[in-house]
Amino acid sequence: MGIKKHILVIPGDGIGPEVTTWGKAVLENIAEEYGHEFTFDGALMGHAAIEVTGSPLPDDTLAKAKASDAILFGAIGHIKYDNDPSAKVRPEQGLLKIRKELGLYANLRPIMLFDELLDASSLKPEILKGTDILFFRELTGDVYFGEKKRSEDGNTGSDLMIYHRYEVERIAVKAYEAAMLRSKRLCSVDKANVLETSRLWREVVQEVAKRYPEVETEHMFIDNAAMQLVKNPKKFDVVLTANLFGDILTDEASQIAGSMGMLASASIGDGTGFFEPIHGSAHDIAGQNKANPLASILSVALMLEISFGLTEEAKRITDAIDKTLKAGYRTGDIADAHTDPAKILGTKQMGQKVLQ
Amino acid sequence: MGIKKHILVIPGDGIGPEVTTWGKAVLENIAEEYGHEFTFDGALMGHAAIEVTGSPLPDDTLAKAKASDAILFGAIGHIKYDNDPSAKVRPEQGLLKIRKELGLYANLRPIMLFDELLDASSLKPEILKGTDILFFRELTGDVYFGEKKRSEDGNTGSDLMIYHRYEVERIAVKAYEAAMLRSKRLCSVDKANVLETSRLWREVVQEVAKRYPEVETEHMFIDNAAMQLVKNPKKFDVVLTANLFGDILTDEASQIAGSMGMLASASIGDGTGFFEPIHGSAHDIAGQNKANPLASILSVALMLEISFGLTEEAKRITDAIDKTLKAGYRTGDIADAHTDPAKILGTKQMGQKVLQ
Ligand SMILES: CC(C)[C@H](C(=O)O)[C@@H](O)C(=O)O
Ligand SMILES: CC(C)[C@H](C(=O)O)[C@@H](O)C(=O)O
Repeated sequence: MGIKKHILVIPGDGIGPEVTTWGKAVLENIAEEYGHEFTFDGALMGHAAIEVTGSPLPDDTLAKAKASDAILFGAIGHIKYDNDPSAKVRPEQGLLKIRKELGLYANLRPIMLFDELLDASSLKPEILKGTDILFFRELTGDVYFGEKKRSEDGNTGSDLMIYHRYEVERIAVKAYEAAMLRSKRLCSVDKANVLETSRLWREVVQEVAKRYPEVETEHMFIDNAAMQLVKNPKKFDVVLTANLFGDILTDEASQIAGSMGMLASASIGDGTGFFEPIHGSAHDIAGQNKANPLASILSVALMLEISFGLTEEAKRITDAIDKTLKAGYRTGDIADAHTDPAKILGTKQMGQKVLQ
Repeated sequence: MGIKKHILVIPGDGIGPEVTTWGKAVLENIAEEYGHEFTFDGALMGHAAIEVTGSPLPDDTLAKAKASDAILFGAIGHIKYDNDPSAKVRPEQGLLKIRKELGLYANLRPIMLFDELLDASSLKPEILKGTDILFFRELTGDVYFGEKKRSEDGNTGSDLMIYHRYEVERIAVKAYEAAMLRSKRLCSVDKANVLETSRLWREVVQEVAKRYPEVETEHMFIDNAAMQLVKNPKKFDVVLTANLFGDILTDEASQIAGSMGMLASASIGDGTGFFEPIHGSAHDIAGQNKANPLASILSVALMLEISFGLTEEAKRITDAIDKTLKAGYRTGDIADAHTDPAKILGTKQMGQKVLQ
């Protein structure tokens, strides 16, 4: 009755490797406990791949990715490139390319709140309590992938923000389908008062909305949404948005969950699913046993649920995290004034606690 | 010793007219008290102008704007256009055009915190306390003004995100000059790991930074900035950013000040300065005597200080607001559980209190 799956692990850069170790350990644990057979392979991406092969996404990594049933990814990026705007080869290109190549057009980012972490947020507990948001961020279009240009004299730079109807439609359908299974409320975020791309976006969402008359649709401008998310996060349920706006809003929303170290994401589309924490490579704390491994472990829960349909196993993981938090254990990013200093754990110790 | 100035008042749409009335009343009051001579003219813009002339920015309004010493503006927008993505003439075009025509390339948005309003925010008071941010948002470039296209078949929409070196340089200089007068910390926000426009932005800011070696410069990605602003707003002082990112971040930051109803902005550049609340037209409460007039009144304080150099008069206004808040008076948007219900005022009553 156990299932057989082949999983590619791409640790990536910065804190990626140390957190991914624990995501993988949890997968092994689940396999043993439930009698599944998970086989693993590893591959390079980002700065880690540039160092070895010169390319942020080596062909070998892409081939392995396509051949796997699901991918567990860590983080990408390196400060070296951030401060050098003229670098031609950059770690992030690897992530963008794999999203495009695998057709991962829908990025799901659930903002869930562990009751125990209500106090870790900068928002007031009464504002947070009851918040449960599911973001659908479009992931293979927008200004991320439109043509980029620099004039010969170097004095003009541009990026084309562009969307095609089918791109908006397919992610809208996914978001509406999810809304039907939740509280039937969907908020689509755009900047239709200024952008043509957003006017197309709104047109298509209005059309798709007609197919789901039970879902209550709201359209909101991105500036207003960025504000409402802080003011009253409970008002949101499913949020549908373009690539750039989704990048900004979901990072902002991470403060609702207490820390970015608590948020996982699933990128899905035409084939293999791709699972990653939403936090970045955080080079300032890399290799210091300080990073929070829970987002990687939660990414694994998303993988089990979304790619493999293993709902029970996924719940087993979130329950284990819940229990660990209830017992008072925290990593530094989610500790607050009430945390027992003896219960502030490193990456490794937190990973082990959850495994137990 | 009094000065003579000619001020154009553009009330605009929604709650614009009712809040602007109080901004203007405060100007008249200051003129009388300090012996200045302020003359006024009025003009239409936005939906209000479309209704009468068919154009969101009639020539007459533009001519009057160019001939004035400063402009006090209300708000723009109408729900009618928001839900009709195919409308060709839109209120917001008026605002965008006047920004471009008057060369208002620098939008200053101070996020200041009245101690009395610490509790009105969704953020914890201890997170907020001491926050004092000055945003410099570029206002006449970016994806706002790049070429917009819709394909013949209607299925593809695009907007060109574009910056020229001189556009980045002139706003960067303004922001660094301001940083020199403040705590000498500047954070430039971009998305240089993905966008060519941002890489040009970062390059130019790095160059300008060299001319201000005393200023400590930080570069931050927009997604991270949207997160840090909620997590730890105190870490920011001067924030320099592009048009679109600035639109999003400043609205988000409005929650720091308790409400958007408390925030004013100054748009400056080559000529006449333009002063407006950052809140929108809020049609849902328009004409109901519910809007908060303080942002319009604070816009007037910015006008006196920035366009006319009347620092003392500006301080007189913020002091009057401070006193009104200390006495416990609130509009609905900044009231909280501790507010005496008898002290929750309408637009008009709040305006009168400040005048007193
Ligand atoms: C690393 C970067 C290119 C990426 C993005 O902007 O998409 C990241 O911020 C994310 O959200 O996954
Ligand atoms: C009304 C709209 C065009 C405008 C903008 O996006 O610039 C507004 O949101 C602002 O921030 O002044």
